[in-house]
Amino acid sequence: MYNTLFLPELREMLAAANRAELEEFCQALNAGRTAEFMEGLADDEVWQVLQFADPTRRAEIFGYFPHQRKLTLLEQSPSAQAAELIEELPSDDRVDLIQEMSGQRADQIMPLLPLEDRRDIQRLQSYPDETAGALMTSEVAMLEEHLTVREALEELGRQSSELETIYYLYVVDDKNLLRGVVSTRQLVSSLKTPTRTLGEIMESDVIAALVSDDQETVAERVERFNLLAIPVVDSGRQLLGIITHDDVIDVVREELAEDAQRIAAVEPLEGNFLKVGLWTLSWKRGLWLTILFFAALLTAFALRHYEVELDKFAWLVWFIPLIISAGGNSGSQSATLVITAMTSGEVKFRDWPEVLRREVIVAFGLGSFLAMIGFAVALFIAPSPRAAMVIPFTLLSVIVCGCLCGATLPIVFKRLGLDPAMMSNPFVAGIVDILGIVIYINIARALLG
Amino acid sequence: MYNTLFLPELREMLAAANRAELEEFCQALNAGRTAEFMEGLADDEVWQVLQFADPTRRAEIFGYFPHQRKLTLLEQSPSAQAAELIEELPSDDRVDLIQEMSGQRADQIMPLLPLEDRRDIQRLQSYPDETAGALMTSEVAMLEEHLTVREALEELGRQSSELETIYYLYVVDDKNLLRGVVSTRQLVSSLKTPTRTLGEIMESDVIAALVSDDQETVAERVERFNLLAIPVVDSGRQLLGIITHDDVIDVVREELAEDAQRIAAVEPLEGNFLKVGLWTLSWKRGLWLTILFFAALLTAFALRHYEVELDKFAWLVWFIPLIISAGGNSGSQSATLVITAMTSGEVKFRDWPEVLRREVIVAFGLGSFLAMIGFAVALFIAPSPRAAMVIPFTLLSVIVCGCLCGATLPIVFKRLGLDPAMMSNPFVAGIVDILGIVIYINIARALLG
Repeated sequence: MYNTLFLPELREMLAAANRAELEEFCQALNAGRTAEFMEGLADDEVWQVLQFADPTRRAEIFGYFPHQRKLTLLEQSPSAQAAELIEELPSDDRVDLIQEMSGQRADQIMPLLPLEDRRDIQRLQSYPDETAGALMTSEVAMLEEHLTVREALEELGRQSSELETIYYLYVVDDKNLLRGVVSTRQLVSSLKTPTRTLGEIMESDVIAALVSDDQETVAERVERFNLLAIPVVDSGRQLLGIITHDDVIDVVREELAEDAQRIAAVEPLEGNFLKVGLWTLSWKRGLWLTILFFAALLTAFALRHYEVELDKFAWLVWFIPLIISAGGNSGSQSATLVITAMTSGEVKFRDWPEVLRREVIVAFGLGSFLAMIGFAVALFIAPSPRAAMVIPFTLLSVIVCGCLCGATLPIVFKRLGLDPAMMSNPFVAGIVDILGIVIYINIARALLG
Repeated sequence: MYNTLFLPELREMLAAANRAELEEFCQALNAGRTAEFMEGLADDEVWQVLQFADPTRRAEIFGYFPHQRKLTLLEQSPSAQAAELIEELPSDDRVDLIQEMSGQRADQIMPLLPLEDRRDIQRLQSYPDETAGALMTSEVAMLEEHLTVREALEELGRQSSELETIYYLYVVDDKNLLRGVVSTRQLVSSLKTPTRTLGEIMESDVIAALVSDDQETVAERVERFNLLAIPVVDSGRQLLGIITHDDVIDVVREELAEDAQRIAAVEPLEGNFLKVGLWTLSWKRGLWLTILFFAALLTAFALRHYEVELDKFAWLVWFIPLIISAGGNSGSQSATLVITAMTSGEVKFRDWPEVLRREVIVAFGLGSFLAMIGFAVALFIAPSPRAAMVIPFTLLSVIVCGCLCGATLPIVFKRLGLDPAMMSNPFVAGIVDILGIVIYINIARALLG
């Protein structure tokens, strides 16, 4: 789990208080790897080692610890040390940490921070979750139009240590209104003409996010325009901060995990699975569970409706779960494949004839195969070979129905502007359960009279 | 769907062959936005407009068209134009396009490319799918140790137009062996000391990917070390190319879509849903469908085993699908939540007691609620209120079992080194189906004797 390669050496160095070696350890490696080697240490040991790194480097190394570990480390340390560290962290990360640490801990640390950092934290905290504002960091390279390429580079050199990313310079006027963007690439390739001004080389058509934008909208835009970072502005186009690519990857992960949850008929949690309140959890699951429950209730009435047949051919009952689950499983396979294909943009509405064509073929293939197995088993259980025939015919029809529902509903829902991931599997399950029973009994009637 | 805002103007400009305005259109906006405005045009119109952009810009704009559209555009255009464009595309993107375009089209275009591009394409094509080699681009900034900061910046300025990203400079020796990395940030902040050499400021502990590494391993490393790009080396540590952040996002999307498919018991397609062969598709679905089918077959034997009871209390049959689906749905909810929580790192093995504690509470809550509804309905269907009691007790127990199986199995499988996403839902379904029936009949026995 941890990389324990250096643990003994580290502990020796600490025991011997070997400053030279410990400084070397903090400095020499990639900061991420340094953190990896330290994960095995106890919290207090981590703090001891970190003291041998200069503040910037210390924050950098700390940044690579797992989120939960960061929290415990901040809870364990003397508040002075914690504050000194937090001061150096990227402003978006530190807000997340402060929001999640215990209230009284935060109250100990906040007063120790410089006024401007405190203000910055409070400002960022004020933005609602899942919006651009909550994702952004306020450390952004803002420069003025009249600067020349050379001046801009030098200014950048001065600022770079404070900035989370320096790959875009944003050009603002004296009211901090966003006027344009210059990528470091443009800047560097403009070095031949060092006296041109940012105003001359900047791109004035800036792709930006509104501070109130939903985080998924932002992530989508960053991906579409293939950006390393996106500036965040208010309605007056004043530059407030930027969102960097690493935060975007997190959003994509979150979004797709939510899809997977919707597919399994859970309202997305939008929060840590272990932290979200049990009431919320129950509600988000109970909602769909109840809807599915009522769908399933119909099957009870359907079966009751077929009381006579079930009485006459009692053995039919034994195959009910098999038939229902065969239909449900093949349906949820189709639905999931179509949903994921739509999310990735592989399938558009206009493709539905092709999707159905392929589904039909696959469904008949799979259906026939399972039908044969089912028939083999039915021969043992059913009173006569003729009776056993009911099972394969039913299985084939139910599986084909399942696949077609599963493949069609997501496309239809998407078309209706509903969320395919949320609506489809529950509906497929419900429809296929009841269909399965109706088909089953009617095939039985037809064959057994 | 498309942004049609400019279509009329664009067509007018084309009709009037208004060079000035068309050049302005190609140049003024963000390239991504330019592409957006052009999506509504016919293929030949797109080509006409693109002719008014200089080659580099043309390739940039083209890069923002949707993948499928890129292919059709390349199929439609005169091969000379296509070749000229492909020459300018990032080397990883153009390989993908050439691999997907019709064979004879590729044969028309390839000979028109400069020898070195052709070599580069053939080399990249030689790497197996889903490996670092297949993802990487060969345009990478390689510089030598002895260069000074100032020299490096100027060199970078010269190269930048050819490079996909310039945010890391890789320091190589005369045999192209990777010696170190310097981020543009370090370079820019070293401007104060312009005579220091790259060798002095570079970080020699470089996080790199092996050309044969699996793409998910690479993506994971890029995320963990929060990189904008990762260098790709061969076993001899010779630098072959880099993988950029945008490719990493694609991998993450792919990987999570595969998880969703596994959760629904489909072997991940690893390919376009509409393109993958029907045999492959059937096989990847049939595999698990069959396993689930055999699991469900057990229910048939179980029910047969309870022939007597089912004969005595025929009405019990009507609730079988309801009970099974209630258990299955709650189980797959739990499994999916735990799986997604493990993928996102929210849940580790050591958390399982907490997970179970919470599951038990939620399960009893949801179970009791649905049990009450079930009881209400049973009162109408069952012969006596006492008999109706069977339903709520069964529902509660089945839902609790479902949640516990669903929450436990993924953790256990992960612990056993199996893929939780792949194993869990099928197993949960199978176990809960059979459990449900056993519980149901035994509660009935106990209450009705």
